[in-house]
Amino acid sequence: MPVPTPQNVSAHKPGDAVAVGIDFGTLSGRAVVVRVSDGAELGTAVHPYRHGVITDRLPDSSVTLPAETALQDPEDHRQVLSRAVPAALRDAGVDPGQVIGVGTAFTASTCMPVTADGVPLCEVAPYTPRPHAWPKLWRHHAAQPEADAVNALAAERGEPWLPRYGGRISSEWQIAKALQVLKEDPEVYHRADRWIEAADWIVWQLCGTETRNVCTAGYKGQYQDGDWPSRDFFGALHPEFADFARDKLEHPLSQLGDRAGTLTAEAAARTGLPEGVPVAVGNVDAHVTAATAGTTEPGRMLAIMGTSTCHVMNSDVLAEVPGMCGQVLGGIVPGVWGYEAGQSGVGDIFAWFAEQHAPPEVHERARERGTSVHDVLAEETADDPVGAHGLVALDWHSGNRSVLVDHDLSGVLAGLTLATRPAEIYRALVEATAFGTRTIVEAFEKAGVPVHDLTVAGGMVDRPHVLRIYADVLGRPLRLVSSGLACAVGAAIHGAVAAGAHRDIHAASAAMGGVREHTVDPDPERTAAYDELHALYTELHDHFGRGGTRSLHRLRDIRNAARKGNP
Amino acid sequence: MPVPTPQNVSAHKPGDAVAVGIDFGTLSGRAVVVRVSDGAELGTAVHPYRHGVITDRLPDSSVTLPAETALQDPEDHRQVLSRAVPAALRDAGVDPGQVIGVGTAFTASTCMPVTADGVPLCEVAPYTPRPHAWPKLWRHHAAQPEADAVNALAAERGEPWLPRYGGRISSEWQIAKALQVLKEDPEVYHRADRWIEAADWIVWQLCGTETRNVCTAGYKGQYQDGDWPSRDFFGALHPEFADFARDKLEHPLSQLGDRAGTLTAEAAARTGLPEGVPVAVGNVDAHVTAATAGTTEPGRMLAIMGTSTCHVMNSDVLAEVPGMCGQVLGGIVPGVWGYEAGQSGVGDIFAWFAEQHAPPEVHERARERGTSVHDVLAEETADDPVGAHGLVALDWHSGNRSVLVDHDLSGVLAGLTLATRPAEIYRALVEATAFGTRTIVEAFEKAGVPVHDLTVAGGMVDRPHVLRIYADVLGRPLRLVSSGLACAVGAAIHGAVAAGAHRDIHAASAAMGGVREHTVDPDPERTAAYDELHALYTELHDHFGRGGTRSLHRLRDIRNAARKGNP
Repeated sequence: MPVPTPQNVSAHKPGDAVAVGIDFGTLSGRAVVVRVSDGAELGTAVHPYRHGVITDRLPDSSVTLPAETALQDPEDHRQVLSRAVPAALRDAGVDPGQVIGVGTAFTASTCMPVTADGVPLCEVAPYTPRPHAWPKLWRHHAAQPEADAVNALAAERGEPWLPRYGGRISSEWQIAKALQVLKEDPEVYHRADRWIEAADWIVWQLCGTETRNVCTAGYKGQYQDGDWPSRDFFGALHPEFADFARDKLEHPLSQLGDRAGTLTAEAAARTGLPEGVPVAVGNVDAHVTAATAGTTEPGRMLAIMGTSTCHVMNSDVLAEVPGMCGQVLGGIVPGVWGYEAGQSGVGDIFAWFAEQHAPPEVHERARERGTSVHDVLAEETADDPVGAHGLVALDWHSGNRSVLVDHDLSGVLAGLTLATRPAEIYRALVEATAFGTRTIVEAFEKAGVPVHDLTVAGGMVDRPHVLRIYADVLGRPLRLVSSGLACAVGAAIHGAVAAGAHRDIHAASAAMGGVREHTVDPDPERTAAYDELHALYTELHDHFGRGGTRSLHRLRDIRNAARKGNP
Repeated sequence: MPVPTPQNVSAHKPGDAVAVGIDFGTLSGRAVVVRVSDGAELGTAVHPYRHGVITDRLPDSSVTLPAETALQDPEDHRQVLSRAVPAALRDAGVDPGQVIGVGTAFTASTCMPVTADGVPLCEVAPYTPRPHAWPKLWRHHAAQPEADAVNALAAERGEPWLPRYGGRISSEWQIAKALQVLKEDPEVYHRADRWIEAADWIVWQLCGTETRNVCTAGYKGQYQDGDWPSRDFFGALHPEFADFARDKLEHPLSQLGDRAGTLTAEAAARTGLPEGVPVAVGNVDAHVTAATAGTTEPGRMLAIMGTSTCHVMNSDVLAEVPGMCGQVLGGIVPGVWGYEAGQSGVGDIFAWFAEQHAPPEVHERARERGTSVHDVLAEETADDPVGAHGLVALDWHSGNRSVLVDHDLSGVLAGLTLATRPAEIYRALVEATAFGTRTIVEAFEKAGVPVHDLTVAGGMVDRPHVLRIYADVLGRPLRLVSSGLACAVGAAIHGAVAAGAHRDIHAASAAMGGVREHTVDPDPERTAAYDELHALYTELHDHFGRGGTRSLHRLRDIRNAARKGNP
């Protein structure tokens, strides 16, 4: 794979210090080799996971899996170390001896039961055929009943950490997933010496010792103000769950950018890197990207826009912002509050429409012009005045995890006429996600957490039509991250910090990260016009999402009952 | 064109008495030759209008037309007499001497200014280049400001006729259209000796004398309780409009089924029929169909389901039913109240989706199987349990002219997820129109006007998937009109009545009309399941349509402003 920004690679001298960043995504892992002095991306390689997302049956097994299950194979992650890292080094043409540090980024919460020495239980023979012994991918949603129980109990008890998560924890996070294991396969639960984030587990594989990072502990494990949720709380969820934190989580936490350890001989052999190279503590794909984007200072919001959008921002203000995914001290960089927010459906909504709901002539035009269906749809309405389609949509096709945090919501489309064209619906969907982002930004500001500027990373950086709509809807210029491999580069920046090559994450970010020269600027007239549509979005949002009607929930109930075999 | 129900034609004896029905539609006119004794359809022919619907420029002219204008050429209507009638006779193989009566049906309100002897002003040389001299087709919507003025004034003055029209008259009707002519081209208005429905004008062409029927006078001209709206009322709309009814409408009204006169020599020459054949008074396409359907007795609702749906039903009860298009004494058959209701979008919503919003694979499957996109979409979900799609839609893509009577409403679709398939949206749209029908039926019953049974005519009679959903949603068996040419046959039945071949419309309908042997019956379990979805439809309907939110109106305002050139 070629380096995507060769213009960065100026005067690469043999012997320059480089850091390796490894980004473990949902379907593949990517390694990148980055020059420590200026962030030049010298080489990269990607390794697709052999088993990808495991949803139907366990690998090489007849064991089938229940609905909403999403597992991964830890050996797939190790193979990224064995394959992608050496390939990236070859691609960069650097000598392994030039590598001064390694950093990682992982999806989260992807978590698993392991033995005391870090072996995933699914790799311990008697447990291999048991689904609950396998790592649960972030998008495993089968622990919703457990999440509901956690939320009900935490609300009832007034747990002080609950407001830090917008009043609701997710079924995607550690506690719900571990509780599901206990309830459904207690033997696996009790056999597990530790319950660990894959972000920390992969670092264990590299350094040979267990570490735990503040970021996943806080965002995904509800560690707040120096402690996990209490023994009482866990015990009230399930008597055998009382010692969950003490037995399976408790460990000194490391700050981001800290050195977790150095490469073991085994990890060195696997990666082709020298033994003893410093390794940064584990980190999360979204959060690590703040370093690439140069948004580590307070008030600089970073939106990683892909199939979904994750917003991360530092602030020195601690305030309760409705619907936050979490606010964690040191969760992005040490010493300040790291806020995380999100939109559960963005690019996947556009793809759903473009791939499944566009008519033949749009596909034909895309073929003729050698472009994508997205481009054809977007260009058709690009010059239409704001609101000329007469539409407003709610972008809840995957529920709402921003200010409402309600996964049972669904999408709405209003204003349809016989003259409504597919391209107009597509634009209304893009606008809806932009209104969703604006809702989040406004929630921050209303709560007293200033948002100074907005930077975009992720796949949408290269979708100018989408960016233009976002800039107009938000009324703000959008900074665009330069790197096309922003997560992996962020991991490398952390590796450089762990190696001591830069003073701290801010300094490393300033040297190695960066944004494109030009911002995408709003048009004041279009922004003013969008204010009206945003007001309509907000009215629908509050009606359908804040109790004006329960109709979307009732539709979901009817759907679920119907699919179970009603007439 | 072959006779569509040849099985009806048993033992056709040369010399059997026949009636000719002529149905003037939006794009073409159709003649049918029907045996008077049993309704057997012996022959038919269709003649497409040369100028169809005139929307952009006047025929053979450079005069362009404003938006929302829809005109017709009266010569196109005469050509139906000259072409389709002789062709239908030839197709039937009957001797013109066997024809004992002629009946007509026309779209309404299609109306025009004419001279005292019935010449359309557009055919009077100096006026030909003036758009307002031409007949305004029912779907001419440019008189909305005039309709708004009529409604505001009538409400303010408490005009007693207003509640007979659901509290709102339409821009499609006579008063608004005539007022538009006066305001925009007073010379044409004042030159017109008469303002007449095309339904009555065509009869004038056949008989040589002016007649006026109670049906269009009532439904389209607001004639109620023996009088037109008052001189005061018209004068308050516009000083020069005060004598509109006295000068341009006033004429003895004829009951439906009455004889308007007999064929003139000129009309006989044109049609190939003998001079002196009795001609029925003018009538409207929807209303005349009640005779074909055998629904002339009180409480038998007839739904003519095509691109839109028109509901007509007789009742001996006079009650105010919200949103009625009109209730007229003798409006369908003499002596009872004829109710008309409607849904502005039905088949055209299905067509909009199937033609413009179905993806390539659906079109491919339709091609492979030699069937329609509609069938592919409908069959894909035909066996899905009710509500399994998790969707509910509002069928307001052309506004709402049933109980809400609000043309500025638009369609809504709720419950979308990334798993929602086009076929599921299609089914939700079909269901939405069925809920719309149920809303109308329930409005009748709530107002104390019983609906005993429901009969379907129109294009949807041959769409089994649509009918099944309607039967399930309504929880009633659907009777299906036998004839595929129901409007033209209804006109022929009226022709037979005018000729005295049957005692009255009821008797003629019993002899000549009819329904298919099998009804489409509801499934009680599916009906029960649809009750829940209908409740959600009603909740959305009332929220968006009865003032819970003005968001659809605001969207419309924003759209209209944007299209006028805002950013």
